[in-house]
Amino acid sequence: MTHPALIMTESSNALPPLGRIPPNVFCAADYEIMARRFIAPPSHAYIAGGCGRDGTLAANRQVFQYREILPRLLRDLSAGHTRLDLLGHRLPHPIMLAPVAYQQLVHPLAEIETARAAAATDTCMVLSTLSSRTLEEVAQHAGVDRWFQLYFQPTRNATVDLLQRAKSAGYRAIMVTLDTAIKAPSLGALQAGFTMPPDVTAVNLSAYPVPGAKILERGESRIFQGMMREAPSWDDLAWLLKQTNLPVIVKGVMHPADAQRFQAMGVAAQVVSNHGGRSLDGAPASLSVLPRIRAAVGPDYPLLFDSGIRSGSDIFKALASGADAVMIGRLQVYALAVAGALGVAHMLKLLREEFEVCMAQAGCATLSEIGPGMLFSENSEAGTC
Amino acid sequence: MTHPALIMTESSNALPPLGRIPPNVFCAADYEIMARRFIAPPSHAYIAGGCGRDGTLAANRQVFQYREILPRLLRDLSAGHTRLDLLGHRLPHPIMLAPVAYQQLVHPLAEIETARAAAATDTCMVLSTLSSRTLEEVAQHAGVDRWFQLYFQPTRNATVDLLQRAKSAGYRAIMVTLDTAIKAPSLGALQAGFTMPPDVTAVNLSAYPVPGAKILERGESRIFQGMMREAPSWDDLAWLLKQTNLPVIVKGVMHPADAQRFQAMGVAAQVVSNHGGRSLDGAPASLSVLPRIRAAVGPDYPLLFDSGIRSGSDIFKALASGADAVMIGRLQVYALAVAGALGVAHMLKLLREEFEVCMAQAGCATLSEIGPGMLFSENSEAGTC
Amino acid sequence: MTHPALIMTESSNALPPLGRIPPNVFCAADYEIMARRFIAPPSHAYIAGGCGRDGTLAANRQVFQYREILPRLLRDLSAGHTRLDLLGHRLPHPIMLAPVAYQQLVHPLAEIETARAAAATDTCMVLSTLSSRTLEEVAQHAGVDRWFQLYFQPTRNATVDLLQRAKSAGYRAIMVTLDTAIKAPSLGALQAGFTMPPDVTAVNLSAYPVPGAKILERGESRIFQGMMREAPSWDDLAWLLKQTNLPVIVKGVMHPADAQRFQAMGVAAQVVSNHGGRSLDGAPASLSVLPRIRAAVGPDYPLLFDSGIRSGSDIFKALASGADAVMIGRLQVYALAVAGALGVAHMLKLLREEFEVCMAQAGCATLSEIGPGMLFSENSEAGTC
Amino acid sequence: MTHPALIMTESSNALPPLGRIPPNVFCAADYEIMARRFIAPPSHAYIAGGCGRDGTLAANRQVFQYREILPRLLRDLSAGHTRLDLLGHRLPHPIMLAPVAYQQLVHPLAEIETARAAAATDTCMVLSTLSSRTLEEVAQHAGVDRWFQLYFQPTRNATVDLLQRAKSAGYRAIMVTLDTAIKAPSLGALQAGFTMPPDVTAVNLSAYPVPGAKILERGESRIFQGMMREAPSWDDLAWLLKQTNLPVIVKGVMHPADAQRFQAMGVAAQVVSNHGGRSLDGAPASLSVLPRIRAAVGPDYPLLFDSGIRSGSDIFKALASGADAVMIGRLQVYALAVAGALGVAHMLKLLREEFEVCMAQAGCATLSEIGPGMLFSENSEAGTC
Repeated sequence: MTHPALIMTESSNALPPLGRIPPNVFCAADYEIMARRFIAPPSHAYIAGGCGRDGTLAANRQVFQYREILPRLLRDLSAGHTRLDLLGHRLPHPIMLAPVAYQQLVHPLAEIETARAAAATDTCMVLSTLSSRTLEEVAQHAGVDRWFQLYFQPTRNATVDLLQRAKSAGYRAIMVTLDTAIKAPSLGALQAGFTMPPDVTAVNLSAYPVPGAKILERGESRIFQGMMREAPSWDDLAWLLKQTNLPVIVKGVMHPADAQRFQAMGVAAQVVSNHGGRSLDGAPASLSVLPRIRAAVGPDYPLLFDSGIRSGSDIFKALASGADAVMIGRLQVYALAVAGALGVAHMLKLLREEFEVCMAQAGCATLSEIGPGMLFSENSEAGTC
Repeated sequence: MTHPALIMTESSNALPPLGRIPPNVFCAADYEIMARRFIAPPSHAYIAGGCGRDGTLAANRQVFQYREILPRLLRDLSAGHTRLDLLGHRLPHPIMLAPVAYQQLVHPLAEIETARAAAATDTCMVLSTLSSRTLEEVAQHAGVDRWFQLYFQPTRNATVDLLQRAKSAGYRAIMVTLDTAIKAPSLGALQAGFTMPPDVTAVNLSAYPVPGAKILERGESRIFQGMMREAPSWDDLAWLLKQTNLPVIVKGVMHPADAQRFQAMGVAAQVVSNHGGRSLDGAPASLSVLPRIRAAVGPDYPLLFDSGIRSGSDIFKALASGADAVMIGRLQVYALAVAGALGVAHMLKLLREEFEVCMAQAGCATLSEIGPGMLFSENSEAGTC
Repeated sequence: MTHPALIMTESSNALPPLGRIPPNVFCAADYEIMARRFIAPPSHAYIAGGCGRDGTLAANRQVFQYREILPRLLRDLSAGHTRLDLLGHRLPHPIMLAPVAYQQLVHPLAEIETARAAAATDTCMVLSTLSSRTLEEVAQHAGVDRWFQLYFQPTRNATVDLLQRAKSAGYRAIMVTLDTAIKAPSLGALQAGFTMPPDVTAVNLSAYPVPGAKILERGESRIFQGMMREAPSWDDLAWLLKQTNLPVIVKGVMHPADAQRFQAMGVAAQVVSNHGGRSLDGAPASLSVLPRIRAAVGPDYPLLFDSGIRSGSDIFKALASGADAVMIGRLQVYALAVAGALGVAHMLKLLREEFEVCMAQAGCATLSEIGPGMLFSENSEAGTC
Repeated sequence: MTHPALIMTESSNALPPLGRIPPNVFCAADYEIMARRFIAPPSHAYIAGGCGRDGTLAANRQVFQYREILPRLLRDLSAGHTRLDLLGHRLPHPIMLAPVAYQQLVHPLAEIETARAAAATDTCMVLSTLSSRTLEEVAQHAGVDRWFQLYFQPTRNATVDLLQRAKSAGYRAIMVTLDTAIKAPSLGALQAGFTMPPDVTAVNLSAYPVPGAKILERGESRIFQGMMREAPSWDDLAWLLKQTNLPVIVKGVMHPADAQRFQAMGVAAQVVSNHGGRSLDGAPASLSVLPRIRAAVGPDYPLLFDSGIRSGSDIFKALASGADAVMIGRLQVYALAVAGALGVAHMLKLLREEFEVCMAQAGCATLSEIGPGMLFSENSEAGTC
């Protein structure tokens, strides 16, 4: 019997996922091009789009072009490697799979395939609260380096339950996303007529109560007194930190002052991210603010990065700009749509080799040698010896 | 019987205004796209165009892209609102309807529909001297926050009469436009063959005498000794301030020195504006000069802004750059053309929500929290904590 | 009998010049668009092109976009005018006709028509050494403000003879062009197959001897020992200054050090010009270097400007950047091609009114009020009061 | 009998090389346009492409546009020339033929034709280790100024043998390329399906042993422990310097610190180059780093330059930015493909004359007069006297 999700995509003129690595994929970013044929147009608009008029989405990509890498010659790289220690664990490389919701949109096996790819490539995977498969089921297929992305739930009981389930299922860290209390919609997805298919649901949350809608009084704002009434607060975060002994990472940091406050209150790590341009249209590129946030938290505090990475040289630029590791969002979905676990694993392997080639050309044998001095700009001090 | 203006537009292959909010309008700026089908091409060229080769028109839009907004996290916005006090009145939000002449060009009921939309959305409307309907008639449909835009008339008697009529009809402020003593024509409108239809007239002025044309002597300039002979002077403005006890606002300020002189002589507020790019082709974007004008007049003096706003994030950027409130010109006309009062009201509701979403994402609960520190640029100090 | 030049252009699918001002010309620059139909494509490539890959040609236009004009309000302009004193003569306006060679390429009456337009509009005309009609014939049709552009001739006798003929024919100044000792060819003109028609000749020079070609020895450069052997030197210029009591102006100055040396040796005025992008592809825009040259020669020394002007606001920007007057090259040819003397006169009238409108909007009643403070740029001090 | 390479290109719809200089070549860069018809599309993708997404390839060209040349007037250039002394030899001009591998891809006679063009135009040619014809055969056709480009070989014996053969064949300098220990592939060439034809081989290396592939152990990186294990080291370079008394030049320098270390260890000259954008996609343009490298090595140390030159004005800009001479890569191949030795010689002649015209316009009689002061930029000090 054909799987329902396959029928959906077929009827939308989208190809089902391949059972092999396609020819003509020469770099990780080729999956972005190829995925157009494997994802139904409305879903593609939703996945590829940012929010509003996609200004921040475009900025996320553009700024990478303005960071240039200075090659170095004759360095001894025979002992080179990409290992790092992060939150008490040794990772073989700094490329992580970002939490991406509702992966059933592009593959019937959804996050299970992604987890298999993570395991096969020694990649740390961050599972979304809004996964299409339960966190328990996904855990059975992932490698040991698996983290859980948390959205604050309407009730603290539900939030605590998620934390406990994640810990029981072997997730090693909690990444709480804070930049989606309110989001501008993607105009492209609206124009494409995207709606979430009824069979794609947040299965992790199915047992939790759904609160009734707030009735606004006259003069109240649908935004401030409506949507934002549910928004998490600094108190909520402080409470969360007490509910788990897993390291807590916050995701969505774009302002140095916020970063310093998170650091001071005991947050274990932070993700500099504008949610891939999906939250505030008009926000700067994540890469643009990264150096200021690194400056604000000091050299030793763990910073992750996402938004806009499509190649190994992008990863190098993010690390040179202050990140310790990066997370891959859209390429993960694109590769999943094209060829399931095989696609995601292949994409990760390509990214890692592109990154290693870039390290070798910049003369860096280890991640710790990657720094702002490797980047060139017309006005920078880098490259002035 | 079909209304004459409808016949005109129909014969021009333009659709008549809808009696409902159209589907597929997802943001305020969508009215700009949709309006192309509801406005006859020559009128559209006149309305959408600026002047000359539209360089300033383009700059007005472009500069918004170079201002980026820094998101903030976890702020308590449950008491958030958009209220402001302006010229002694409490306004529920800082979005005003700019004075736009001859609205019968796009809708048979013209400013009456606009006034109805203003009333329905608690929006302050500024009625143009050159309205297609009399200021008295429009006043019956507008909300309490209605202001009157004044052009100096050829005779002081006519100007005084307009002031008195406006006050009698309940207009609460006088906004005198100073940047149109001379204007470069819109080459686009000329090329499109636009002429004002004979039934679209400045009904407010029909009772006033029209002065004879000035006969130039040999060697005199058609510009300096012709058109500019009628131009208002500083003395005229000083005289005007004595003719009314309503607050007087000047519109069209682009130079800090002018702003300081207006402030010193008792002008109640100023509109930083290049007339939507319709006056001097080659002038900077209004947004470019706004911070310098705010610096010149100090933090507490009321400044309004127009030229180029198409979204709530544009409003946020204008306020962060020094404005207390903004005026909406072209989107007003576009929404009026598409769906009359319903369209204008819908457009205003969308703009306001877009703005509130932006405030929420920037962590601003009130307008007073919006400032230059919310904006990011590669070289700015914002975001450096 | 049909004029030979008309036959030539007709056979090239180019329209003959009109006997009237064409409709649909709304600004001076419209002649540039319209001229495409009145000039044979190879000639158009030659006239419109610059040199090399037209990089400097493009720069000449682009930089005007980056100079913005700050509007001023309520200034008394009733005594406004555009008069200036230049080299001892009073000119009614600062717009001059640049020397343009071989005008028979676009009109059978060539420079005679141009001269008529100059006379009709009180415009100072600079006649090229390489005019298609003799300087004596053209003088009969020009106004009193006529200058003669000089190319150094292979023999000093010929140069002296030209000087004397120009003075006898009432030309009031000598403008010696120095930037064409060697020029990069226009690749566009070469690709279009342009060659000078045999009936278009430098009639002013027909009586002078033509020197034999230099035979290069082995190892000599066709450039240095060939073409540049004939190039004028500082000594030649010093000699020239002694041959005439007319004011001598040098044309083609782009470097402040050259400007200072010319000033010190008694040159009466200078033209900041890169020859409309026709000399060195890769040179800066003339407007880019103008402020530095003004700074080098001090505020009172006469500087003219050409290269890139297409509108009255361009003229304003050139004057605000340091020029006392401007010369119009390509628009002159385009208007001549479209409608002969009528076209050139109409183009000049449009330019002048566009310029006066710009002055009025910037609040400048006289040329002396136009200065760098009227220009705005994001980083400039202008507009900071 | 038709030559095999010709059959290959004919079957690919590519034209065979012409036996004459084609009409319609008006500048050296025209060979780039024309070559598209003479090179099979996959080979063209390989030759024209850079690496990765060709970002550095594009930057190499773009930066030339941002360097502008200030014209000077009335300089005496009658003794002008382009001679220079380089590594103890007098060269008639500073334009060299860069080492380009596998020229049989575009011409059946390959490097023999290139050598003939070099001899005919007094051009110093640098022959690639990977030439399609043996270094001994090519030497018979080249002029006296011939250098040999060296890739370190897997065994020191092979490297020494190459050095000795080069010296015996009269090559006057050794240029060792250091930036290709690892290269990002050209995605364009991969997409075009390019593979090296079997009859195009590195004939100079046919007698040397090929080492077996390294077997990676678990956890080892294909990049670091694989490809980079063979990479040359500083020790290798020190060893190389002792193996020959010919001057040794290193090629591929992009960082000032590397440049200083090479200079200190006795390297005779360096080539600032990013390998024409073929090594690290994301590296700066070679021209961008050139001034910093000149500053690092001091004014008298010999620096060559390649990457992006297409015209004489590009050569001028490179010399003004710090180079003593330049090398021409792609234009060499394009001209070879179009018309063999005639094409290459014609291209070199055009380049040289374009360069001399540029020198003349900038008022430089000798190479030593070309310096940063000839370049203009909005913010530079050049042109400020």
